[in-house]
Amino acid sequence: MQKPSLPKGTRDFGPLQMARRTFILDTIRDTFQLFGYQQIETPAMENLNTLTGKYGDEGDQLLFKILNSGDLLKDVTTADLDKGPGAVLNKVSEKGLRYDLTVPFARYVVMNRNELTFPFKRYQIQPVWRADRPQKGRYREFYQCDADVVGTDSLVCEAEIVLMIRRVFENLGLREYSIKINNRKILTGIAEAIGEVGKEGPLCVAIDKLDKIGWEKVKEELLQRGFGQKSIESLAPLVSLESDMKRKLNFLKLFLKNSEVGLKGVEELEGAFGILSQMGENLDHIDFDIMLARGLSYYTGAIFEVKVHHVSIGSVSGGGRYDNLTGVFGLPGVSGVGFSFGVDRLYDVLDELKAFPKESHTSTRILLTYFDQKGFEYALGLLSQFRNAGIKTEIYPNQTKIQKQFEFANKKEIPFVGICGEEELKAGIISVKNMVTGDQQRLDISKAIVLLS
Amino acid sequence: MQKPSLPKGTRDFGPLQMARRTFILDTIRDTFQLFGYQQIETPAMENLNTLTGKYGDEGDQLLFKILNSGDLLKDVTTADLDKGPGAVLNKVSEKGLRYDLTVPFARYVVMNRNELTFPFKRYQIQPVWRADRPQKGRYREFYQCDADVVGTDSLVCEAEIVLMIRRVFENLGLREYSIKINNRKILTGIAEAIGEVGKEGPLCVAIDKLDKIGWEKVKEELLQRGFGQKSIESLAPLVSLESDMKRKLNFLKLFLKNSEVGLKGVEELEGAFGILSQMGENLDHIDFDIMLARGLSYYTGAIFEVKVHHVSIGSVSGGGRYDNLTGVFGLPGVSGVGFSFGVDRLYDVLDELKAFPKESHTSTRILLTYFDQKGFEYALGLLSQFRNAGIKTEIYPNQTKIQKQFEFANKKEIPFVGICGEEELKAGIISVKNMVTGDQQRLDISKAIVLLS
Repeated sequence: MQKPSLPKGTRDFGPLQMARRTFILDTIRDTFQLFGYQQIETPAMENLNTLTGKYGDEGDQLLFKILNSGDLLKDVTTADLDKGPGAVLNKVSEKGLRYDLTVPFARYVVMNRNELTFPFKRYQIQPVWRADRPQKGRYREFYQCDADVVGTDSLVCEAEIVLMIRRVFENLGLREYSIKINNRKILTGIAEAIGEVGKEGPLCVAIDKLDKIGWEKVKEELLQRGFGQKSIESLAPLVSLESDMKRKLNFLKLFLKNSEVGLKGVEELEGAFGILSQMGENLDHIDFDIMLARGLSYYTGAIFEVKVHHVSIGSVSGGGRYDNLTGVFGLPGVSGVGFSFGVDRLYDVLDELKAFPKESHTSTRILLTYFDQKGFEYALGLLSQFRNAGIKTEIYPNQTKIQKQFEFANKKEIPFVGICGEEELKAGIISVKNMVTGDQQRLDISKAIVLLS
Repeated sequence: MQKPSLPKGTRDFGPLQMARRTFILDTIRDTFQLFGYQQIETPAMENLNTLTGKYGDEGDQLLFKILNSGDLLKDVTTADLDKGPGAVLNKVSEKGLRYDLTVPFARYVVMNRNELTFPFKRYQIQPVWRADRPQKGRYREFYQCDADVVGTDSLVCEAEIVLMIRRVFENLGLREYSIKINNRKILTGIAEAIGEVGKEGPLCVAIDKLDKIGWEKVKEELLQRGFGQKSIESLAPLVSLESDMKRKLNFLKLFLKNSEVGLKGVEELEGAFGILSQMGENLDHIDFDIMLARGLSYYTGAIFEVKVHHVSIGSVSGGGRYDNLTGVFGLPGVSGVGFSFGVDRLYDVLDELKAFPKESHTSTRILLTYFDQKGFEYALGLLSQFRNAGIKTEIYPNQTKIQKQFEFANKKEIPFVGICGEEELKAGIISVKNMVTGDQQRLDISKAIVLLS
């Protein structure tokens, strides 16, 4: 008899974890819908030629590949075996598991471009798979939670992303966090302004590490990457810049005065803030971080990253504007802006802060208990009444000691127990016990329904 | 530039399909929760030794297998190549995609048996994968939607399954359907009663085809399977039996009077009906079908199957009681009862009957439109007010002709459009147009919120 186990890097989610994940996902979903985003789903499997070449060499290595059905070796020749694993792989596998939600979304947009209404706002909440080495907090299967709007360059989208992030955090009960914002064009402008035109790529890669390794090490790296000593020195005032939003913007306008693209970046940022103000919204939680880079060369405008304060977990949300989502599939010029929430990380944040709501709205509200057959039958009658009133109700299915029924309620953290004894039966009422406070009341059924609703 | 495509047998779900699927899944989920079922999720990938040998030889062939990471051929020897595909397969793949939700659930129960509170009621809604030949209505990736309660033999569970099915159908707006019920023990009893003790297996397989091939062909098959002519003839009154529930039960009690197990089956059925009656519930939609078998040898008690009338689609839900869920993983004696809804089939039923609700509660309620920059800024102010009142609201993000904005609302089937023109701005109001009826009203913001809520 085999002892079953899970593949490494994968997890089961039990009832408590699911209730908590559902709390997070419902909060995100409700917000996406409030802002007019529509859900899509794509298959777990994609053709390998859709996936490969999109995530760099390292990403290609991390794709989970699926064996073709039928005889495994039917197309494999001796020549393939001589050529090695790559040649054999091509003959035995043509599908892989999706690695993220962006590439499937790009494929979806291309395949449905004639039916879609642009601007198209979509969200997508599905698992992705990566053959990464598992470690604490890193899994081989995890959910991504993406929202993108494509087919518009309106800065309303950027403003709405800020609002969506704030709403989600508000509804999750998280108050202390920063939405770091920058604009890729500002980084391009900075490269220009320091006399290193076109080198925003390596500049971003180095600056991205500022938080982790500090300014001295970043300077070393820039030097190694061929930046001039003078250029690097001229970056210094930006790195140490700490002041309010307005001063930062004014400083940048001066610093970037000779960079058209840099000034455009500042203008876009101010544009998004202006829209927030026209919406009657403030700039709470927004942290304009001139040094925020994010590694992705993919972004061309706004860049976002969200950090929760007082926790050990890194960024829990991020995104940015791009101008070429689907070029790789032969459809150029599809611009948009997208962001995503890291569900596992949000889970860990709420767990670390002990901020999950005590009660889940998805779980049973009351367990009906009884002493004997008569009480059981009486409870059965009440069961339907409670449920028809929309109250999540259970009855202990087997006749057993009432103690055991109470234990069951305790273990399942059911907040109320209904007692159906002889007295209650005679009076046509129910005794309702609050399992947290210990309070017990004798109630008419209608009053019990009000209490539990 | 490659033209992207989907792997055969897989599908994208666009916004309209997703809204409809969400309607179905939310309906099912709400019902499961009302009855105290708790959600779990298991990983898409399972170890192959968890999956193989559970679905018969044919099932094993239909498992999607995942290639081990790293060098494909590192463990493959020349000897393996000589031995053929099976030997090679063992060296290159140790994981597969889940084929159903039952085996992962059994694995979950075994691995968590010390933490779980029994009776354990779980539901699970996740995709499964089968390398079947794709055809109309049959896909390689599809959702299953299972609910099981394990660790109790109480007939309350059977009664509650009937109630859950009825509630789901009621809330989906489906009125004409049958919940066919039988009991595996009755079939065993029938085999006994006709003098073919222990042959309920082949009897079930043959009888399962009654609907499709008719009684004459079933008789032929039984003859081929070694049933005696006399035994087969004695089945005849059961096949043609059509009358009310009470008569059927009485007939069976007589027919099975010498079969202990058969009478136990009748007793279990009557027990479940009795519980329904104690709950104050009727027997509407229940069709006691003595010939209902379902192929699965797995079932030991009640058997369910649901058919919607007036549609071409087969059964949309089914299940039954079993007494050995986890034996194959070394944990004997875990009994329970489970059932599942076929989401794709329910989708097709609602589609065929044109029974999907016109409006989705997940999509945008109103689009704010405007003529110029001033109107745009006014609309931005209203946007937050509507959203803060919980109304799903969008603004057309780019300034463009109002015609185009209306077209956008039409294409997205947004039911209301808000017009923010000069007049509205001056009066501090909004004109709201119902896009279905064409009615247009000038409203205070607070009145518009009431209209749209």
